[in-house]
Amino acid sequence: MSAALSDAALDQLFRTARTYNHYLDKPVGQDVLAAIWDLVKFGPTSANSLPARIVWCVSDEAKGKLAPLCSSTNAEKVRNAPVTAIIGMDVNFHDNLPEFFPHAPAMKTMMDGLPEAAREAMALRNSSLQGAYFIIAARALGLDTGPMSGFNNAAVDAAFFADMPGVKSNFIATLGYGESGTPHARLPRPDFARFNTIA
Amino acid sequence: MSAALSDAALDQLFRTARTYNHYLDKPVGQDVLAAIWDLVKFGPTSANSLPARIVWCVSDEAKGKLAPLCSSTNAEKVRNAPVTAIIGMDVNFHDNLPEFFPHAPAMKTMMDGLPEAAREAMALRNSSLQGAYFIIAARALGLDTGPMSGFNNAAVDAAFFADMPGVKSNFIATLGYGESGTPHARLPRPDFARFNTIA
Repeated sequence: MSAALSDAALDQLFRTARTYNHYLDKPVGQDVLAAIWDLVKFGPTSANSLPARIVWCVSDEAKGKLAPLCSSTNAEKVRNAPVTAIIGMDVNFHDNLPEFFPHAPAMKTMMDGLPEAAREAMALRNSSLQGAYFIIAARALGLDTGPMSGFNNAAVDAAFFADMPGVKSNFIATLGYGESGTPHARLPRPDFARFNTIA
Repeated sequence: MSAALSDAALDQLFRTARTYNHYLDKPVGQDVLAAIWDLVKFGPTSANSLPARIVWCVSDEAKGKLAPLCSSTNAEKVRNAPVTAIIGMDVNFHDNLPEFFPHAPAMKTMMDGLPEAAREAMALRNSSLQGAYFIIAARALGLDTGPMSGFNNAAVDAAFFADMPGVKSNFIATLGYGESGTPHARLPRPDFARFNTIA
């Protein structure tokens, strides 16, 4: 049994953590991207399906390809951030189950028989879980993110996932060391009683 | 700028954290459920949409209602766990945007015009993010979870969300203080190069 993390850690992960649109001029090395993945990969997904596929836009070329596919306000964020991660999802994730969920071969057979829409919902659910692990893992390592949905999914898929059949974009997120003082005031958060029920 | 959390904290959140099916005989008080929510609520969602609606099954009656709606292996987990959380999602989450995203009234108008399927995908994405925040928040507070998709969604919706129009179940998760030594060996996790691309 573990103790609760310190208040400082809970603040860093959740309570004072914020979405950032402006970052310090401090590079984010590929070792840091790998360190984030090495936490994200441990987060649970259904049947260890691990559907997320991540493209880390680090070069000016990649940012220049992604930015025009975003809404105008998001384009500027992509151009200015050290990194923007495209969190994609593989709707054919079940092809990997014999490797990732080897003790239950029936799981792949069951998923083979599902309509693609059902597998796409699973991929959306589980790659979103992994997207949240990415946000929290970045914070745990001292970085900040700016997750965004305002982009043309089909165009991003064509530009970044053309060589990965079955992979579609879920959401994107800028990544870097947030410039303190830049976030807007925090938006409202409801108390427990609003959206929770004890049964 | 924050430093990285300690190795012990990274272990507790990700690296040695596990999905649990067996829990210590130690109650999980309603104050703990509220403490989890008070972290979860701060995790980012698109346009602060906060679509997750959580039913915490604490009573034997609630567990007895949920268990028969699960697969047989999951039913036993629900009956034996101190708590099972049903993570639901409100497909009419956009009705709250004037309150939660007050600076951009156009966002609700835009979402009013979307087909319900588009809003349901947003609700699935964002309630899954919140589901992951729930898993990590529980770990950060020293608890463990057992997330599951093996249940009859329509039956759970009828049993638990009948009085919340527009709310559908996303996934469920047992919650408690995990009994050490019970998890199976960890399933494989791929290296960075497998599912990540630097662009």
